[in-house]
Amino acid sequence: MEWTRAQRYLPYDQHSALELLNLQRQAATSPEQLKYHIRPQSGLLNDPNGFSYFNSQWHVFYQSFPFGAAHGLKSWMHLVSDDLVHWQDQGLALAPDTEFDSHGAYSGTAKAVGDRLFLMYTGNHRDENWGRTPYQLGAWMDKDGHVEKLQAPLFVNPAYVSEHFRDPQIMEHDGKFYAIIGQQTVAEQHGQIALWTSDALEHGWHEVGKVNVGVDDLGYMVECPNLLFVDGHPVMVLCPQGMDQQTMAYDNIFPNTYITATGFDFYTATMINPQPMHNLDSGFDVYASQGFTAPDGKTYLISWVGLPDLSYPTDEQNWANCLSQVKELHLKDGQLYQTPVAAMRDLRQLDTAINLNGETTMIDPTFGQQGELQLTIAPDQTGTLHLAANDDRSQTIALHFDTEQGQLALDRTKMAHPTATDYGTTRTIQLPAHQALNLDIFLDHSLIEVFVNGGAQVMTGRYFNDQSNQVATFNQPTQVTGTAWQLSAK
Amino acid sequence: MEWTRAQRYLPYDQHSALELLNLQRQAATSPEQLKYHIRPQSGLLNDPNGFSYFNSQWHVFYQSFPFGAAHGLKSWMHLVSDDLVHWQDQGLALAPDTEFDSHGAYSGTAKAVGDRLFLMYTGNHRDENWGRTPYQLGAWMDKDGHVEKLQAPLFVNPAYVSEHFRDPQIMEHDGKFYAIIGQQTVAEQHGQIALWTSDALEHGWHEVGKVNVGVDDLGYMVECPNLLFVDGHPVMVLCPQGMDQQTMAYDNIFPNTYITATGFDFYTATMINPQPMHNLDSGFDVYASQGFTAPDGKTYLISWVGLPDLSYPTDEQNWANCLSQVKELHLKDGQLYQTPVAAMRDLRQLDTAINLNGETTMIDPTFGQQGELQLTIAPDQTGTLHLAANDDRSQTIALHFDTEQGQLALDRTKMAHPTATDYGTTRTIQLPAHQALNLDIFLDHSLIEVFVNGGAQVMTGRYFNDQSNQVATFNQPTQVTGTAWQLSAK
Repeated sequence: MEWTRAQRYLPYDQHSALELLNLQRQAATSPEQLKYHIRPQSGLLNDPNGFSYFNSQWHVFYQSFPFGAAHGLKSWMHLVSDDLVHWQDQGLALAPDTEFDSHGAYSGTAKAVGDRLFLMYTGNHRDENWGRTPYQLGAWMDKDGHVEKLQAPLFVNPAYVSEHFRDPQIMEHDGKFYAIIGQQTVAEQHGQIALWTSDALEHGWHEVGKVNVGVDDLGYMVECPNLLFVDGHPVMVLCPQGMDQQTMAYDNIFPNTYITATGFDFYTATMINPQPMHNLDSGFDVYASQGFTAPDGKTYLISWVGLPDLSYPTDEQNWANCLSQVKELHLKDGQLYQTPVAAMRDLRQLDTAINLNGETTMIDPTFGQQGELQLTIAPDQTGTLHLAANDDRSQTIALHFDTEQGQLALDRTKMAHPTATDYGTTRTIQLPAHQALNLDIFLDHSLIEVFVNGGAQVMTGRYFNDQSNQVATFNQPTQVTGTAWQLSAK
Repeated sequence: MEWTRAQRYLPYDQHSALELLNLQRQAATSPEQLKYHIRPQSGLLNDPNGFSYFNSQWHVFYQSFPFGAAHGLKSWMHLVSDDLVHWQDQGLALAPDTEFDSHGAYSGTAKAVGDRLFLMYTGNHRDENWGRTPYQLGAWMDKDGHVEKLQAPLFVNPAYVSEHFRDPQIMEHDGKFYAIIGQQTVAEQHGQIALWTSDALEHGWHEVGKVNVGVDDLGYMVECPNLLFVDGHPVMVLCPQGMDQQTMAYDNIFPNTYITATGFDFYTATMINPQPMHNLDSGFDVYASQGFTAPDGKTYLISWVGLPDLSYPTDEQNWANCLSQVKELHLKDGQLYQTPVAAMRDLRQLDTAINLNGETTMIDPTFGQQGELQLTIAPDQTGTLHLAANDDRSQTIALHFDTEQGQLALDRTKMAHPTATDYGTTRTIQLPAHQALNLDIFLDHSLIEVFVNGGAQVMTGRYFNDQSNQVATFNQPTQVTGTAWQLSAK
């Protein structure tokens, strides 16, 4: 279906409750629907927002257009969790209902301040000529979930910034509040990350400067910049749209990348000793990742699994996209590691465990598409692991491994419903040669997440095969140890 | 708020999506909201419907008015589960959208037939003069959750039955389909249970006769009759509205009762050797319970926790009521036992276990309102167990026990927000004298379920105290063994 502008921006109170109820049922009963990941209650989900710990619970919000698989009038939907795995929907938290966010309550972040949660986000406003003004806005959420927006934007946009000025990350450092914001310059249409600061949070904001991340080319716009501190070291996570492939190679329509450094100077907005930029995920669909360091001292990240400007097969069912599982971040020898959180183990149905210990071809002809495989493939082997496959492998999500030369490819060539094929159907990463390969693989009906070698690399992708495809098998006898489990629905 | 008829029967497509989103958020964020029981996504929940096992999952539906705490235009909302404990909302399954259910898709049941689920339910129709006709209707749900209603009612109502003719229970016996239906006679306004049969399901229905349950007085209407076979023996579960207290004593506005028998004759609609009627639950709010015997051979029951014609404190928050946990039924020496299903143990947070082993006063000053206590109180003691209590016990849900004389009382006198006080604030049951008392108690924020002596009796009640009330304690030193756990949200 083609969405007109009028349809995409129809106010929520001009949609009917019956339409929404029907969309919610359609999303809930979709065969491709995620069972243990955060998924839209209806319509389209995009960026995670406001990922935080507040009032003794984990909180995350997501960008939502509840009325179909389109980027229409956006709001924040809210979920809470006790363990970062089992999430409970809390519904619409931030609606596009003021002058400043009239055309969308766009992305932002959250920070617990006192006994309330401060939400900092971008309001998307369009005038009668469809001219856009982005406003950086604030709102307070209390412990009962009531949200009260500040009356006015937090500050006036600088003149040198274009209409692309959004996705503020609120943080606190040394008694001051800071915000990292993605922007585009008017003059050269360059993507940048700005650092702003305030002593008072609700007012007094001024720009510190453009963040020096050690890379000149950040494309035409930086979306969702996130300055994280992982094991105490700064890691900038960002989405440099339109970045030159010479700056850093990437395969997806837009990259989600990271840059580590030895320090961050808040006075000069400078990453100290920045390292080369890397892809955050080596799969097909990770974007707009958002993280924060929790009171437990650990830094957690969650990603949109979906990309701007692409369509997905479930669009026909009027819903689209999901969030990744939450990933715990660590730095080892300057390298970023992403691993499942501990509570993911609680999803394992222990009585379904299949133990692999040596030469194996078939893992389980009825494994299905809601499970985890934790495997170690011996050195000096080549082969293919087929998952969610049918008997003749004409449908399969495949992992081609070569532990001799050191390579792993995630292959979604053989799909019932191909997606984003313009950007290729395989993603390949390099591995140490002649080494065992450790994989922790999660399947959730239309999502695969592969944690490689303890999270040194992650390959995430949506896939769309028939749910009757149950086979988990190697293409030939393979030396492998590990365990496969069915996972519980959340 | 007073609801006008026009407000209660406004079609779903004339409510706005924004109104529904706001109601869903209000229900989700309510401090009193249930965390591991089935609760309304918005508005009012009443009877469980269509409790069944189909397509390798458990299914239950509930009567829903999504737009507030009122008995308005009803539909069926749907949930599925893999374990009878963790339920996933599947949304609106049966909307009031035909001539025959124009004023409500009222209660009914479900039965797997072939590879589809047959839903049999009552359509509530009103004519322009608000004259009511109830229709017994059928619909098929396929494995993807698509529901298709039959074009016409299953049969024409008999002339001797008033407008109160509803709540069909579909079953199969000896190659034929049967339906048990609650009804009121036109002539004498007596409540009855009718038995109907058909060889063909979609047509060919005719009445076998009125079910002889061994009790003449069934009040002015029988709601939600359910003929169960528990360990192979017939148990009629029913709600005889307006039944004389001489027939059987009960405390609630309307009773939910059961009658056991040694056999059931489908040819004469007769319970053979029926025993005296008993209350199904000895608490405050159980009604409209629905059960069925699953492929595992066990019979399961789930109840509405709520009653017709009463208001509850959360009405002000625009939501009301919940379903009970699923109860497994057994007969021992002719007595009905109701016990939690095995998977309820999976909710226990094992690292929170508090073991009691001897004289105890305080159990846990911060126990809170989302937990289970499995206790054995020694013989010949009297005292009070305070739960969800504040420090001075001015708010408490109290259990007064006397294991000398043999008595247990559930006391909701000391409530922040009293409810249904016209029907008393305590419920008392008799126990064997000089015997230990075994209790399995579940708290879920505004619901208490007490399984007494292995489920020989159950006391269920909503309660409404501040969520800051955390204390679990005896009023004095008590000889007790057992364990208390925090429970996970579903």
